[in-house]
Amino acid sequence: MARTKQRMLDAGVDMLMITDPANMNYLTGYDAWSFYVHQMLIVMLDEEQPIWVGRGQDASAAEYTTWLDGGHIIPYGDHYVQSAVRHPMDFVCDLLKERKRDKQTIAVELDAYYFTARSYMQLTQGLPDAKFKDGTNMVNWVRIIKSDQEISYIKKAAEISEKAMHVAFETINEGVRECDVVAAISHAQIRGTEDFGGDYPSIVPLLPTGEKTSAAHLTWTDDRFKHGDPAIIELAGCYRRYHSPLARTVVIGQPNDDMKYVSDVVVEGINAVLDAVKPGISCEELEIIWRQVIERRGIKKESRMGYSMGLNYPPDWGEHTASLRPGDRTILEPNMTFHLIPGIWMDNMGVEISESFLVTETGCKVLADFPRELYVKPNIRLA
Amino acid sequence: MARTKQRMLDAGVDMLMITDPANMNYLTGYDAWSFYVHQMLIVMLDEEQPIWVGRGQDASAAEYTTWLDGGHIIPYGDHYVQSAVRHPMDFVCDLLKERKRDKQTIAVELDAYYFTARSYMQLTQGLPDAKFKDGTNMVNWVRIIKSDQEISYIKKAAEISEKAMHVAFETINEGVRECDVVAAISHAQIRGTEDFGGDYPSIVPLLPTGEKTSAAHLTWTDDRFKHGDPAIIELAGCYRRYHSPLARTVVIGQPNDDMKYVSDVVVEGINAVLDAVKPGISCEELEIIWRQVIERRGIKKESRMGYSMGLNYPPDWGEHTASLRPGDRTILEPNMTFHLIPGIWMDNMGVEISESFLVTETGCKVLADFPRELYVKPNIRLA
Repeated sequence: MARTKQRMLDAGVDMLMITDPANMNYLTGYDAWSFYVHQMLIVMLDEEQPIWVGRGQDASAAEYTTWLDGGHIIPYGDHYVQSAVRHPMDFVCDLLKERKRDKQTIAVELDAYYFTARSYMQLTQGLPDAKFKDGTNMVNWVRIIKSDQEISYIKKAAEISEKAMHVAFETINEGVRECDVVAAISHAQIRGTEDFGGDYPSIVPLLPTGEKTSAAHLTWTDDRFKHGDPAIIELAGCYRRYHSPLARTVVIGQPNDDMKYVSDVVVEGINAVLDAVKPGISCEELEIIWRQVIERRGIKKESRMGYSMGLNYPPDWGEHTASLRPGDRTILEPNMTFHLIPGIWMDNMGVEISESFLVTETGCKVLADFPRELYVKPNIRLA
Repeated sequence: MARTKQRMLDAGVDMLMITDPANMNYLTGYDAWSFYVHQMLIVMLDEEQPIWVGRGQDASAAEYTTWLDGGHIIPYGDHYVQSAVRHPMDFVCDLLKERKRDKQTIAVELDAYYFTARSYMQLTQGLPDAKFKDGTNMVNWVRIIKSDQEISYIKKAAEISEKAMHVAFETINEGVRECDVVAAISHAQIRGTEDFGGDYPSIVPLLPTGEKTSAAHLTWTDDRFKHGDPAIIELAGCYRRYHSPLARTVVIGQPNDDMKYVSDVVVEGINAVLDAVKPGISCEELEIIWRQVIERRGIKKESRMGYSMGLNYPPDWGEHTASLRPGDRTILEPNMTFHLIPGIWMDNMGVEISESFLVTETGCKVLADFPRELYVKPNIRLA
């Protein structure tokens, strides 16, 4: 809250309206699958507690999960829900007028998933005397450096990601349906460990197979794996909304030469980047190290090769702040966490091998302990 | 496409920009977890094929999953992704200017989840000669009456929902962790049946327990169930993005009198509504039938008690069109599908028992075949 208010002060705003569920959770603990209706957290510079505004039937979730007192949990009536004639933001406008807060400078998260164009129109029309500024990612940037508690959550998530990837490798095989592999992965993700349970990851397991490995974000079908099929498995462990993503590529049978070559280059690039990570280096410098490795080996990649990650809700576990790509001059600091995912997608195949890492005082710690290589099934070392 | 274009014609628009992933899927088949970056389908009244615009690395997913030819799949560069200095909608503006489409009347889905305020600002600023209209739910209303193929998908989803609820009932017990119950549910949802696999539901299993049953949209923890705990289980089966939701309430041990009473009333109310469903009746008339039953028994409920459902992506399986509530005069027609979920949430407890149904020529067909009652565990009939 203090660091958020400092950013508000620097930006010259009296009030910040937060609709990003991760930011709502970060500041208050609020945690429920209620972001499919409009809801909001209003942070006022001059008040200790923010105000939660949401649907009536979700007010008790705010009571159970946040540190806010009852007076700061303000539900709107159900007739505002998905209505063609009234909008929850009208309720917010009325609330601010009632409290004589309608002439202030208000930051809104203009490019957050659940802040629709209609929400903004209703606010600007309903509060004609207010001044609006862009507060996109204002809290996200506060979140980029994790507390020790957050890191302990992410480490638990990493343990879950290891278990889930092991289950994926054990399950995948010739003749097995894609959906049965993902069912086993999902079971492992949610079960967690003996000591702690898992939460739902913000992205379901991705499992492009065969030549569809060239399509990064496909999910799964009920087709059966065939001999020779490659498959990409991208998943995350999640603990209390904190993620640790992990991707690997597997081939059932013998990988072709392209697949082997690209995998080797990707692993070499990842190793070079991980060796270079330390406080003080910038995101774009890390990307250059990666690019030099792969270009020397004749491979080009246009897309970003990593991003800050941690706390989030569907549809993304990325934090929308720093990206490992050209032009991003964010300087790495201890307790930042990144997903390093230099996926290579070609016309008829793709390779993804990734690591999530924590920036330490002197370098980095890779979060999941999992062999960094193209996995071939059946794996003779396991046989 | 034809019915969408008819609605565009009626609304006086040349072009419809679609960002709702369910509407993109409905019109083209597009199916990938790529809605965490900006993407869009542009339907032009005078062109047979719509244009898919999305991130470069997702273009191959469009090739694999849609009926569009390559010329209608237009990727933007990765430097537009989550950038503070450029926005994917700038790319869309340039595209329309290039094609001399920048002076047309354009409908946008102003209140769709992934159409942000920033998206709308970039479009209106980048296309100053275009005229913008609200196209929220334009395609959703086309979707409200399902084809036979869609109904066959929803029936498969219903089979999965039965299996998942059976697994939930078998697994839940004193001493079991909540996460382990949900892991089993999720496994059943994704595994599907021997004959067909399951897809990811747009909402994860909801599992409020104990007095938290008063909070409708809580997910789960790793706490262990105690003797006497009630729990609400709300889940859906999903097949190829089509849903069939189902909710039940379970008590471990003996239910208290309130829980028994409320459950009986809810079941009585559901039965009365299902008896009344037929083509020609309106949504609000169904709600009145429900309300009369429960008020006679001394229970009040403010929130809507059902909604149209079917095809969707996170964060919702509802369709955002017809709701069973006061003031909704939508007339039921054959091949509409609803989730009838008259949840009752009180101060310290809640009861959810729901059914999904298909409107038929003469009445309705309940989609899942599952005992409609408060479930008490251990259940002597199963013992």
